[in-house]
Amino acid sequence: MSEIATKNVFHFGNGDADGRKEQKSLLGGKGANLAEMSSIGLPVPPGFTISTEVCKYYNEHGQSWPQELENEVAEGVAHIERALDAGFGNAQNPLLVSVRSGAAVSMPGMMDTVLNLGMNDNVVDGLAKLTGNKRFAYDSYRRFIDMFGNVVMGVPHEDFEHAIEELKQQRGVENDVDLTADDLEVLVDRYKAIYRQHTGYMFPEDPKEQLQFAINAVFNSWNSDRAIKYRQINKISGLVGTAVNVQAMVYGNMGEGSGTGVLFTRNPSNGENKLYGEFLINAQGEDVVAGIRTPQDIAQMEAAFPPAYNELVEVTQKLEQHYKNVQDIEFTVQHGKLFILQTRNGKRTGAAAIKIAVDMVNSGLVDKKSAVRDLVEPGHIDQLLHPRFENETGYADKVIAKGLPASPGAAVGQVVFSASDAEKAKSEGKAVILVRIETSPEDVGGMDAAQGILTSRGGMTSHAAVVARGWGKPCVAGCGEIVINYKHKSFTNGHVDVNEGDWISINGSTGEVILSKENLVPPSLSGDFAQFMTWVDEFREMGVRTNADAPADAQKAIEFGAEGIGLCRTEHMFFEEDRITSVREMILASSEEGRRAALAKLLPFQKEDFLGIFKAMAGKPVTVRLLDPPLHEFLPHDENGAAEMAKTMGITIEQINAQIDALHEFNPMLGHRGCRLGITFPEITEMQTRAIIEAAVELSQQGVAVHPEIMVPLIGTVEEFVNQKRLIKTTADKVFAEKGAKVDYLIGTMIEIPRAALTAADIAKEAEFFSFGTNDLTQMTFGYSRDDAGKFLPHYVDTKILVDDPFQSLDITGVGQLVRMGTEGGRSTNGDLKVGICGEHGGDPSSVHFCFKVGMNYVSCSPFRVPIARLAAAQASLASES
Amino acid sequence: MSEIATKNVFHFGNGDADGRKEQKSLLGGKGANLAEMSSIGLPVPPGFTISTEVCKYYNEHGQSWPQELENEVAEGVAHIERALDAGFGNAQNPLLVSVRSGAAVSMPGMMDTVLNLGMNDNVVDGLAKLTGNKRFAYDSYRRFIDMFGNVVMGVPHEDFEHAIEELKQQRGVENDVDLTADDLEVLVDRYKAIYRQHTGYMFPEDPKEQLQFAINAVFNSWNSDRAIKYRQINKISGLVGTAVNVQAMVYGNMGEGSGTGVLFTRNPSNGENKLYGEFLINAQGEDVVAGIRTPQDIAQMEAAFPPAYNELVEVTQKLEQHYKNVQDIEFTVQHGKLFILQTRNGKRTGAAAIKIAVDMVNSGLVDKKSAVRDLVEPGHIDQLLHPRFENETGYADKVIAKGLPASPGAAVGQVVFSASDAEKAKSEGKAVILVRIETSPEDVGGMDAAQGILTSRGGMTSHAAVVARGWGKPCVAGCGEIVINYKHKSFTNGHVDVNEGDWISINGSTGEVILSKENLVPPSLSGDFAQFMTWVDEFREMGVRTNADAPADAQKAIEFGAEGIGLCRTEHMFFEEDRITSVREMILASSEEGRRAALAKLLPFQKEDFLGIFKAMAGKPVTVRLLDPPLHEFLPHDENGAAEMAKTMGITIEQINAQIDALHEFNPMLGHRGCRLGITFPEITEMQTRAIIEAAVELSQQGVAVHPEIMVPLIGTVEEFVNQKRLIKTTADKVFAEKGAKVDYLIGTMIEIPRAALTAADIAKEAEFFSFGTNDLTQMTFGYSRDDAGKFLPHYVDTKILVDDPFQSLDITGVGQLVRMGTEGGRSTNGDLKVGICGEHGGDPSSVHFCFKVGMNYVSCSPFRVPIARLAAAQASLASES
Repeated sequence: MSEIATKNVFHFGNGDADGRKEQKSLLGGKGANLAEMSSIGLPVPPGFTISTEVCKYYNEHGQSWPQELENEVAEGVAHIERALDAGFGNAQNPLLVSVRSGAAVSMPGMMDTVLNLGMNDNVVDGLAKLTGNKRFAYDSYRRFIDMFGNVVMGVPHEDFEHAIEELKQQRGVENDVDLTADDLEVLVDRYKAIYRQHTGYMFPEDPKEQLQFAINAVFNSWNSDRAIKYRQINKISGLVGTAVNVQAMVYGNMGEGSGTGVLFTRNPSNGENKLYGEFLINAQGEDVVAGIRTPQDIAQMEAAFPPAYNELVEVTQKLEQHYKNVQDIEFTVQHGKLFILQTRNGKRTGAAAIKIAVDMVNSGLVDKKSAVRDLVEPGHIDQLLHPRFENETGYADKVIAKGLPASPGAAVGQVVFSASDAEKAKSEGKAVILVRIETSPEDVGGMDAAQGILTSRGGMTSHAAVVARGWGKPCVAGCGEIVINYKHKSFTNGHVDVNEGDWISINGSTGEVILSKENLVPPSLSGDFAQFMTWVDEFREMGVRTNADAPADAQKAIEFGAEGIGLCRTEHMFFEEDRITSVREMILASSEEGRRAALAKLLPFQKEDFLGIFKAMAGKPVTVRLLDPPLHEFLPHDENGAAEMAKTMGITIEQINAQIDALHEFNPMLGHRGCRLGITFPEITEMQTRAIIEAAVELSQQGVAVHPEIMVPLIGTVEEFVNQKRLIKTTADKVFAEKGAKVDYLIGTMIEIPRAALTAADIAKEAEFFSFGTNDLTQMTFGYSRDDAGKFLPHYVDTKILVDDPFQSLDITGVGQLVRMGTEGGRSTNGDLKVGICGEHGGDPSSVHFCFKVGMNYVSCSPFRVPIARLAAAQASLASES
Repeated sequence: MSEIATKNVFHFGNGDADGRKEQKSLLGGKGANLAEMSSIGLPVPPGFTISTEVCKYYNEHGQSWPQELENEVAEGVAHIERALDAGFGNAQNPLLVSVRSGAAVSMPGMMDTVLNLGMNDNVVDGLAKLTGNKRFAYDSYRRFIDMFGNVVMGVPHEDFEHAIEELKQQRGVENDVDLTADDLEVLVDRYKAIYRQHTGYMFPEDPKEQLQFAINAVFNSWNSDRAIKYRQINKISGLVGTAVNVQAMVYGNMGEGSGTGVLFTRNPSNGENKLYGEFLINAQGEDVVAGIRTPQDIAQMEAAFPPAYNELVEVTQKLEQHYKNVQDIEFTVQHGKLFILQTRNGKRTGAAAIKIAVDMVNSGLVDKKSAVRDLVEPGHIDQLLHPRFENETGYADKVIAKGLPASPGAAVGQVVFSASDAEKAKSEGKAVILVRIETSPEDVGGMDAAQGILTSRGGMTSHAAVVARGWGKPCVAGCGEIVINYKHKSFTNGHVDVNEGDWISINGSTGEVILSKENLVPPSLSGDFAQFMTWVDEFREMGVRTNADAPADAQKAIEFGAEGIGLCRTEHMFFEEDRITSVREMILASSEEGRRAALAKLLPFQKEDFLGIFKAMAGKPVTVRLLDPPLHEFLPHDENGAAEMAKTMGITIEQINAQIDALHEFNPMLGHRGCRLGITFPEITEMQTRAIIEAAVELSQQGVAVHPEIMVPLIGTVEEFVNQKRLIKTTADKVFAEKGAKVDYLIGTMIEIPRAALTAADIAKEAEFFSFGTNDLTQMTFGYSRDDAGKFLPHYVDTKILVDDPFQSLDITGVGQLVRMGTEGGRSTNGDLKVGICGEHGGDPSSVHFCFKVGMNYVSCSPFRVPIARLAAAQASLASES
């Protein structure tokens, strides 16, 4: 920002440039990039950039140019003319240019591009001769008038559209392409008439005048309402104006010695180190995209344009050397001369990203640090772990609905509407997608049997979403666009009905529901993946744990590199068939004795759970959260269930129903749950503590290292924590005395209530660790119920009231303040405090970056996100270096 | 704290004292108070205080006394002997003393009082002779052994109890009082034996030894587990130890020349300036309390003990002069000599408090500032505004349940269970209490007809509570101890059934439900009240507004001194019979057009509402909150209602039910409500803005000043606010253009979402005012649903996990942080930001103090709390002066 402009206009092209890539504030992003490409010797079409300082001068001096500017622009044009051996307004060998705005940061709302500037009645004929294509020349001319008229002079684009429609009617043709060269020549005149009507002036035939108008239009657009608004909304300040980029147009359709193409420096699909792309002889860029003519493979270009091809190969090597990354290049050959129009980092699949990174390190092109920092994105890893559709771009027209991308990956199967149907179909060897309004713990058998899960209700942390993510199974949740009818065994989006047995595909990474049987590509983890992940861990400083409730999940997570369990929920275990009855007895008991009797039946089961998990984690820390959900979640949901419970407990069904009614809550999310249960029913905390500690002691007596961390949920006051801590300690001491042996364990808390974050300094005096439960913290900080926010959250994201869904990516501005206050407050009174996160955000890359910045010890996420979190954590460390 | 003790023992009595009242840290609270009373010339029984420094020395020097202490204690005893002309251990004229602990702050857990110290086998006979009551002497003796044994030496009290039980069995009597003097003489020996068994020593007959033991016991008790725990929990630090107070015992039962009594310096019931109390000749304090003998009126004492009475009158005047407040005094006359045992500020009724304050100012005893600061409590004002029970202490055994004190005041009536029954009974001239599980807007007619309301569900801000408070009608809400059966028209607490027509009384100030027809005292606002409130306003700096939704409420609030409306909810208006159908049509409409059509029907009603309120407030600011509750609250709750809507709208009942289902929410408190409605359905905000602005413009054209402040609810992000602000501005500008006239108005927001408080600096750049909605803010900061917290909140308050119900008194530690951050953050970017509070806490005195400290411009509360808030605000200002 401190550069002092010594001149107004900066040339580029011919393997050299006046400007540097660091001069973004002076040349704008686009201008700096053009200067860079040119200065490393790339054959970009020549041109010049008028600096942002000029824009400032212009707007501060009543829309006038600095004295020297006119000459400098003329010099710039002359520079292009020399480079291309062509002339601005020269009919025999015309130079046409593009004019573009470009500020230091990308900013919609400013002037659009004007192409083919320099065209006039003489030049059009020259272009027709040079290309041997009169139709192309006149089409370019009439497009130029439209563009210049609209973009520079504000003539409504519709007026030009009307004119072409009218002409088509008069000619009795349907499409633009059916108009002949002569028709377009007529159209040029009509366009000029429209231009004159609106502006009051003749269309400017003088290219220099055209250029001056266009440059001023760019300067004026800096202060357009849209641009000002955009800067306000995005809080962009400190910029002085926009630069103007004037660059030669080059043409691939100047005969058989010309052509155009696109290529990747390596194969973006599988990562193979071989040029990958295609080209067309005597064609423009649009022709490649339009697909009317079939392009040739890039390798065949060697025969067509040997010198240009060899230069291109050299250029690709130069580019990879320079950018240390795969490049995606657009190029044109004009009369045998190669021009690079654009280069950027190439998008690639996850598999390609890994292979490219490993190859580039092995060949010495990049070091491990750059590979980890720049060459693989967390999203690439996600792709690798799940099946994908073979044809990822081919199903757009078969998408019938879109829900939340609740658990990534692709799945294909026949529709079923109940868990039992799913299990039955699976036993018959069928692949099915389980479609439910929402799922409950009773559905887990069917969820397991299905290839994927689709629900019409519930959010990113609904039962279906959480369970599916834990298993790595694709799930689209909360798909409110469909209405499910269990009775008719069908669902509809209002246009199409889908019945039981129909094939659908779901994309859990995008939320798409596809009415077709797509082909799948299975996930595959190569040796390169393992290699790359070891590099990741070399640069990672923050720990990565997993959220796992069962030994199998824990095992999977360890394979993915988890260093412990950050959240083991104890309530999922309660739903299993052999224990739900005892859980219900406990809840429905009318006295402490009754509850204790039922809890005594649960104890051996809980202990068994912990034995399994502790064993699977063999020496790694395991954070066990005490019972969290409101008790009514465990109660039977229908009359049958109630009747069964009545029988089991020997009381009337009315008594059961009365108890269920009494447990009803208006806002269960804010109700009698978390530590509020353990405080009002201390016997629950006692039983769970006993199960944890007994399991830990027994295993440690067998020589298995165990590091339990007991986590009290939903703490809002230090007094709550002290109450539960005392109970846990007393119970653990009892077990130690009984067993004659001890284990080390920690007692800590979730920070998920705003008040806990606000009073963290007090709580940390008592707690040994904090784990941020950012799901609930987000709910309460925003006042959003995850289960209900579907009514307005999509609208909020669409209209930019929210940049992201705060349940997917941590809201750093708001919720992040509480996370920071909680961490800093806690550490202020307890320097040893261990701090982590166990909300869904623990697997979201941008949230992981934030957690690193705040200074957390670890993040914890579902097993299939562990490698993603590892990469994100490493990248956060590397980002903090610079 | 910087005092240096020049001696260890401080004398008091005989109209003089060594210590001063400021020496609390040296003498303890009790010692400083005794010194003060003595130094202003009150005839307190003489004694001495051993300083807290001695306790420190003792505990730091292996339980040993400083060298000088023994002499100083002996000097202290001699001082008492001289003052009373009696001797420690002198059987003819014995001196007995009490020994008490007393630290700088009151602290349970330290040593209890020991009375009658100095008693032994000789002295007991002397006492018997002096009082002419051997039984009393021996009873005192055996009590002393019990107390000394237990409190000083740790002998279990039960052992002494067993001994007396045994003796009663042997004597064949039932009660202690049936034991004769000789029996008690036997008992003294048995007590001594018990003492010896437990301690291994003979009971000490030497009074000096007794005293030394007792003093050491006080010092030791400073470090008892209970005392240490208490200091930890209450965060008491910086104290060096406890003082020991040794004071002469005096006896009112030393014959006809002695007596005892209690009195208030003014009538605590009505405030009359006349001594108010009673006394008994030849009796002890217990005898007055026990009620066995009927005491005489204090006025009759003049005849019985003329000199003592005259001294007493002088003393009362001296006390009022000194303490500038009504005093509640305990006294004893021993052999004609008056002793003041205790004096403290007298508790009084609200009516008395006002009269006393005004009288004391008028007589010049106190100035207005002291009267406002010290003589009336906010709770007194509350009493004045509502009916009370005539016999406020007489109904304890008739209380059958306790709920939340949702709206203060007492009500009596016959039980009815439906709104229509209440209206019918009212028309028949009956007084009824409406008993409902919960109330809904459909019940308002019946609520109005009832004397009071009792609900079994819902919290302090349930529909019943809010409506009742607005009307000043007594209400007990959320009384979970009762179960209501509408079918049988009865309710029960599990022991007693209450049927329709039974008389009950409810105390909305305490939450008590009483099974009886209590007598009521109506509220009365005297001229003194008005006078006092003008003084209040002289010292008040913070504004007081009211929460009012209807012109009548607004009118009432103005009478109570409201300076504007801080919260006018617009949704209560929606429930009225003539508009609920249009509201439902709006909600059930499937298109924007349908909604707009229904809203058009509502517009004239809403405008009418605002015309009424603006007129009533005549020039005072009115904050109107846009629609807040989730839409499903307005939908019919039963099949009849649904059928009616189906008919009105010409669609099927299934469609209605489907729409109702679609609007269902799991956690409505965190759902689609507040500004989320106005953003997804902008036409609602448009209609409401139009109604507000049209009303304002029309009135201002008629010459009525109008200051509308439009408040957007439930803002969590500045983007939400900007969205609604733009809509409001556009709509207002349209109305201004149509009417050809403008009014000034403000646009601001509720701060009730934690995120809004956290991002207040951003929001304040756009908002003109903030109003803290501390109800919702408390819900979300704690994660408590008001409607469900009844399951654990009472337990939390009982077990001290929470000091107060945070919905009644603002949680300054947690929620208060957000209020402070919000206020300071907002003011940091907008120096003109007006800040207020409109949650229930706006009428809670301690919360009002906090709001003042934070720097709010005003508080707003329900009409009947306005005078309370005025007093609390004035007291907050005065408290900040010192």
